[in-house]
Amino acid sequence: MSPNSVCKLSPLLIEPAVRAALLEDLGRAGDLTSDSVIPADIRAKVAIVARRPGRVAGLDLAFTAFRLLDPNAEIEVLLDDGEAVRTGQTVAKVTGAAREILTAERVALNYLCHLSGIASETSRIVEAVAAYKTKIACTRKTTPGQRAFEKYAVRVGGGVNHRFGLDDGILIKDNHIAIAGGIATAVKRAQESAGHMMKVEVEVDTLAQLHEALACRVDAVLLDNMDTDTLEEAVRVIDGRAIAEASGGITIENAPAVAASGVDLISIGWLTHSAPILDFGLDFLGAPAA
Amino acid sequence: MSPNSVCKLSPLLIEPAVRAALLEDLGRAGDLTSDSVIPADIRAKVAIVARRPGRVAGLDLAFTAFRLLDPNAEIEVLLDDGEAVRTGQTVAKVTGAAREILTAERVALNYLCHLSGIASETSRIVEAVAAYKTKIACTRKTTPGQRAFEKYAVRVGGGVNHRFGLDDGILIKDNHIAIAGGIATAVKRAQESAGHMMKVEVEVDTLAQLHEALACRVDAVLLDNMDTDTLEEAVRVIDGRAIAEASGGITIENAPAVAASGVDLISIGWLTHSAPILDFGLDFLGAPAA
Amino acid sequence: MSPNSVCKLSPLLIEPAVRAALLEDLGRAGDLTSDSVIPADIRAKVAIVARRPGRVAGLDLAFTAFRLLDPNAEIEVLLDDGEAVRTGQTVAKVTGAAREILTAERVALNYLCHLSGIASETSRIVEAVAAYKTKIACTRKTTPGQRAFEKYAVRVGGGVNHRFGLDDGILIKDNHIAIAGGIATAVKRAQESAGHMMKVEVEVDTLAQLHEALACRVDAVLLDNMDTDTLEEAVRVIDGRAIAEASGGITIENAPAVAASGVDLISIGWLTHSAPILDFGLDFLGAPAA
Amino acid sequence: MSPNSVCKLSPLLIEPAVRAALLEDLGRAGDLTSDSVIPADIRAKVAIVARRPGRVAGLDLAFTAFRLLDPNAEIEVLLDDGEAVRTGQTVAKVTGAAREILTAERVALNYLCHLSGIASETSRIVEAVAAYKTKIACTRKTTPGQRAFEKYAVRVGGGVNHRFGLDDGILIKDNHIAIAGGIATAVKRAQESAGHMMKVEVEVDTLAQLHEALACRVDAVLLDNMDTDTLEEAVRVIDGRAIAEASGGITIENAPAVAASGVDLISIGWLTHSAPILDFGLDFLGAPAA
Amino acid sequence: MSPNSVCKLSPLLIEPAVRAALLEDLGRAGDLTSDSVIPADIRAKVAIVARRPGRVAGLDLAFTAFRLLDPNAEIEVLLDDGEAVRTGQTVAKVTGAAREILTAERVALNYLCHLSGIASETSRIVEAVAAYKTKIACTRKTTPGQRAFEKYAVRVGGGVNHRFGLDDGILIKDNHIAIAGGIATAVKRAQESAGHMMKVEVEVDTLAQLHEALACRVDAVLLDNMDTDTLEEAVRVIDGRAIAEASGGITIENAPAVAASGVDLISIGWLTHSAPILDFGLDFLGAPAA
Amino acid sequence: MSPNSVCKLSPLLIEPAVRAALLEDLGRAGDLTSDSVIPADIRAKVAIVARRPGRVAGLDLAFTAFRLLDPNAEIEVLLDDGEAVRTGQTVAKVTGAAREILTAERVALNYLCHLSGIASETSRIVEAVAAYKTKIACTRKTTPGQRAFEKYAVRVGGGVNHRFGLDDGILIKDNHIAIAGGIATAVKRAQESAGHMMKVEVEVDTLAQLHEALACRVDAVLLDNMDTDTLEEAVRVIDGRAIAEASGGITIENAPAVAASGVDLISIGWLTHSAPILDFGLDFLGAPAA
Repeated sequence: MSPNSVCKLSPLLIEPAVRAALLEDLGRAGDLTSDSVIPADIRAKVAIVARRPGRVAGLDLAFTAFRLLDPNAEIEVLLDDGEAVRTGQTVAKVTGAAREILTAERVALNYLCHLSGIASETSRIVEAVAAYKTKIACTRKTTPGQRAFEKYAVRVGGGVNHRFGLDDGILIKDNHIAIAGGIATAVKRAQESAGHMMKVEVEVDTLAQLHEALACRVDAVLLDNMDTDTLEEAVRVIDGRAIAEASGGITIENAPAVAASGVDLISIGWLTHSAPILDFGLDFLGAPAA
Repeated sequence: MSPNSVCKLSPLLIEPAVRAALLEDLGRAGDLTSDSVIPADIRAKVAIVARRPGRVAGLDLAFTAFRLLDPNAEIEVLLDDGEAVRTGQTVAKVTGAAREILTAERVALNYLCHLSGIASETSRIVEAVAAYKTKIACTRKTTPGQRAFEKYAVRVGGGVNHRFGLDDGILIKDNHIAIAGGIATAVKRAQESAGHMMKVEVEVDTLAQLHEALACRVDAVLLDNMDTDTLEEAVRVIDGRAIAEASGGITIENAPAVAASGVDLISIGWLTHSAPILDFGLDFLGAPAA
Repeated sequence: MSPNSVCKLSPLLIEPAVRAALLEDLGRAGDLTSDSVIPADIRAKVAIVARRPGRVAGLDLAFTAFRLLDPNAEIEVLLDDGEAVRTGQTVAKVTGAAREILTAERVALNYLCHLSGIASETSRIVEAVAAYKTKIACTRKTTPGQRAFEKYAVRVGGGVNHRFGLDDGILIKDNHIAIAGGIATAVKRAQESAGHMMKVEVEVDTLAQLHEALACRVDAVLLDNMDTDTLEEAVRVIDGRAIAEASGGITIENAPAVAASGVDLISIGWLTHSAPILDFGLDFLGAPAA
Repeated sequence: MSPNSVCKLSPLLIEPAVRAALLEDLGRAGDLTSDSVIPADIRAKVAIVARRPGRVAGLDLAFTAFRLLDPNAEIEVLLDDGEAVRTGQTVAKVTGAAREILTAERVALNYLCHLSGIASETSRIVEAVAAYKTKIACTRKTTPGQRAFEKYAVRVGGGVNHRFGLDDGILIKDNHIAIAGGIATAVKRAQESAGHMMKVEVEVDTLAQLHEALACRVDAVLLDNMDTDTLEEAVRVIDGRAIAEASGGITIENAPAVAASGVDLISIGWLTHSAPILDFGLDFLGAPAA
Repeated sequence: MSPNSVCKLSPLLIEPAVRAALLEDLGRAGDLTSDSVIPADIRAKVAIVARRPGRVAGLDLAFTAFRLLDPNAEIEVLLDDGEAVRTGQTVAKVTGAAREILTAERVALNYLCHLSGIASETSRIVEAVAAYKTKIACTRKTTPGQRAFEKYAVRVGGGVNHRFGLDDGILIKDNHIAIAGGIATAVKRAQESAGHMMKVEVEVDTLAQLHEALACRVDAVLLDNMDTDTLEEAVRVIDGRAIAEASGGITIENAPAVAASGVDLISIGWLTHSAPILDFGLDFLGAPAA
Repeated sequence: MSPNSVCKLSPLLIEPAVRAALLEDLGRAGDLTSDSVIPADIRAKVAIVARRPGRVAGLDLAFTAFRLLDPNAEIEVLLDDGEAVRTGQTVAKVTGAAREILTAERVALNYLCHLSGIASETSRIVEAVAAYKTKIACTRKTTPGQRAFEKYAVRVGGGVNHRFGLDDGILIKDNHIAIAGGIATAVKRAQESAGHMMKVEVEVDTLAQLHEALACRVDAVLLDNMDTDTLEEAVRVIDGRAIAEASGGITIENAPAVAASGVDLISIGWLTHSAPILDFGLDFLGAPAA
């Protein structure tokens, strides 16, 4: 079973999102340009073509945009989410009503470019630490409304997902500790309240805090903004008693050194909040007969 | 009247968006960590602090996140949208229920960081062409669901907005021309159909196309992917008969040269689709009495 | 390309509206009458018949009502939106489940009658000024929630659309001028703020105001409540430097005289807010076998 | 207890409708004109003034439009829903942020004019039959999405409401009878299925059908398109055994004659589908200090 | 025409409810278990099997859950809503994508078990009073959001529906009477306000109140919490002048005695608010080839 | 910190649910009874009184119903969620507009009765096993749309929550195992796919399956439908290597014996799907002056 077979998004999540995005673009009056310039009965065949190399993600969202406007559109899929793409490569061809294809173009590409951008960045850093057991995870630093899709793109790029929201895991951060009055108090309260399927993770900034957290038998520790020497020492201290996650200031350059420290996981906010798009365009291939 | 007084977002647009973003983060069970770790009656005072220098945008969205969870939260505003911020500078202080502040934190910062990132990039390129009359515009290459907010951030950064959607302007692009069978046909159809408040713009890739478009008396021309010599020639040809917009491959480095060609407008997709965030954090200042 | 091919409404706009209208009629318990009186397996063939002469608009909305309740309904289309219809003429025949057809009837006819009423009134006044270049436009005086559909009906009737909302054009009215402190100030602020695709129109009540507006190089002037002599003088003054729009108290009787003044556009609120319906009914043709 | 105290609309129904109407008008970019022309800190006092005489309805909807955009707007109410208004009379004064007042104006007036138009027409025909016991009722021929408000306007004008939807009463019409195979069959099925709070009404076109319906002990009969002689005969035949409702082709001119026949109820579709608006405008009274 | 053919729920009501229920269960990340454990291309055939005897209701809701996730799912229907089912009996078989079937399972069964529980309880008490003319009715004591479905289940079980909401009938209860200042005042106000399709029912606790209500010519009386002797006397007093409804503390044991008193209707809150589920499970039958 | 301070529901979840429930009850026409019978200016004071002993849950939802209809309603809270209540005890008093209180009554009580019913049943079984370490958990067998509230009621009653949905934990059940081809395969796939915050639980029906699951190092095992002897043996086999959860056919009678086996957790579907309501009523206390 390939990784991709695991991570498909449900059409139940995709369809309302793409429908809303199309309505955002159509406004009240619809596509004034295509409706006035293109006769209603013209058909078109177009190619979705990569303008840069990277990793494809979001094809189902793009295809849904075309299908919502032209339910009879025929789509020839040449590449799947998760596959590498090179500049100029066609990932799919769409044949259908010319007007509707041009109307859907921008929404389809906005999803495809954004999610492929995230998958491509994720893929690069996953490859950078491929020699280590360390996994690359995303965070909750996502674009509002896009969390399910952006986290999907991280999985497509070979990364793993951290919490999807405030309700599917307990992560005690510095501000929680400060307000609760210390790691021990905070962790004890969390463990008493947590359900049996719920893990408890604590952010620690120092080795002293790490010792305190481990004494509380937490499931995971978030080693925040530590240099690689401290990370190595932290991993030694943990000694398998908790999952070790590193975060803070990690780039594609220093990721291998961080991974070499032996941490189980590196979590990176910029995968979802700052990855530039992977550019795709729509090339007109011709006007087939109806 | 300062530019900012012009561009405030209506609370009618802000509130449902922030509410949806909070619900996306709360999920079905709410903030398991804060609810278990922080007693319900503890209050907190926190500072929203810039981690990098840039231009602030999105404060009203961030404040709305805090207020939706704690209607009694008091917010001390130190900086307004559009102002420059330096590393370590506090833009606002929030005092309220500790749990609710920590629950709202991520959504508040996700909006603030994303929109400030766009405003900061816009601001940098607006300054780069400040010696010229040329304005910087965004495109429809936005994150689905975020168009009104991302275009607002462009205005905050000193840029101007191109079309908000397919229905508030006519922009005839290469694929439209190809399918319609030429610029003249396409423009004629558009002009016949356009309302009297609606302008018609045409994308041209060559000077030959430019001549054809001008002969049709279009309101604006999008000079796509032309080098600066060609742009200069195009501006001479246009001679004030249409608005001249340049686009395609424009960076902060080459923007001044493009502006020097005399174009009225430079439109840039990456302002909205690839601007990295401007990082902000929440610093705990203390636990005031209720 | 016929005018109608230009102005079709996207199914993405139609379907949720018709679904909501059906749910408004079904309430919580559904169609008590049809469900109790008509056996579930009976089929019916019905005709949608005009009770008065006029111009048809809204067929796609009516058809969607039938199809949402009976996805297998077969619809024979005899007339298209925009065509003239005479009393007693059948515009379409619907064959499907008898219960569902009767349940959908009222919603289907409510849309068809309301929109055809608007198209018919528009058509009458368009014909009244057919000897002139003047176009007939609607306003933002629409029924809440129906703007896209009512403006579509105006197009179907041969009219053109003014602004769809507050965000797709700048129209400075008397109250704006009074509060801003004069035409010159108001126009200057608007022009500084307007995007390059956005036109600026100003309402003027006198020739003095017209001169002031033209001096500001506005794109269009709304000549409000002027008599035909003043309108003629205004058109002479404008001399092609701006689009001339007349509005206020225009009826089918005085419209030709107004058009004769040479204005480009007459805008009329009652097209959308006070047009009586064009009556249609559903005639039972028989009960075909399944 | 005055009739109006009975018929107020719940804010739970009003607020989401007005919010949606404002968003329909604001679009994605908001009120470009007011935002650019009016400084943010200017206040205004305006009067809502009737341009024609009639009956007021919908003030709460209009006020909600102003309050949703400026929660601090102060509203001085001079007239209530249901009261008569003369040309030039002020029904309310609004003081608040100038921008927000102008932004809300169109939506506020669209509701007020539309609903007052319905109340005014209803009031005229109610007065026309005031000498008789006959009540004036509306139908389900309403604008999609506006049923609760339009039926409220009928009550405000002194009329009564027929069914609000397909689920709060059983009304067997000609097509039901034709498909079911006769009045007796149809009524029997309906009575077996009807709950104990549910009345059964049957449409009859002839006196023969009337006899058949009465034999089935229906609660009410809809006497459709009968001339006044036949109506009188029908009322004699009914002799108090069922509620007598007349409908079809009833105008303000022939309504008294119809009422004189002794029917309990006259139902009229055009009250809700074809009543012209009652015109109101917004007059600027001055710019009070904040 | 069988009773069931009358009471089908419109797909327009079912589909959005089931879609929302699936999204409630899928959350942001979807079915982590099935997506990781079951390969995407495996098909499954499963049986929906009763674990207890009772009356089936809600099959269309259950089937919709499977079809929304796998539009190609084939469903073999062995039993219809309203039919009796015995322990171990298969009501339907579903063949489709294995992942999607397991993802939909819980939502499908939650609807089926809950509604069949209501239908089964209703059916038991309907049978208990089968020797009498008395009908069994439900109340407005339903689970929020489920009223249309729970009232449907009562119909499926052989019961009838009381009011669906506050707007489809007038029922004056003890608190209304206390606040209005007596039965006569309350009934008079209600009758003046009620539409001609609307019945008026009054709750009475004593025979004195009953006499007062009948003197007002109410359509129905709710005889609340009376013992069977009093009920018998009440029915004698009413003597067919109003519908007689008994309620309060009625169980399957005392229902026959209550029915024997001659009341037309017994209304029971626990049919909808406290009926235990009828248990169904999903049995795996095998993995057919695609 | 009391347990209740942990488990409050966010108003962000409560308000839209209660609003929808009120709209479900109001329908299109609102509360015909209260609007016609109660003058608009009458105020009322009422008590919410328990009709049976139990555990209170859902007060915030009930209070929200009153406040949404009368924002000025004053509520005197006498008991909190989680506290025991005896027959006849008043849990809160509400003073406000009489009409609005009576309109909100049913929705307020529907939530309060349903959730208190769940909390009361949970509380009874929690007390039954109080001598053991075993916790009582709910399942995903909830009423569609009510999951967050029903699981909240379980917490209020002293229970703990299992998964809130398919996305916040991995639970491999019999059908997953059958389709995947065995426990080892299924668990391995799940562990490879699971995020680091995610636990993996497996349902086992026999001790042989238990051994197989433990060999895969699962985090938890669901011991399904085992008798108490087998459960004891299972707990011995597990020996602290995984969390032990018992489920299947557990009643208040046999729960202590199951708990005595040493399992960590007993999960019970009927807490949420079949708990009868705890009855509450609204008693009129008087009509205070405004």
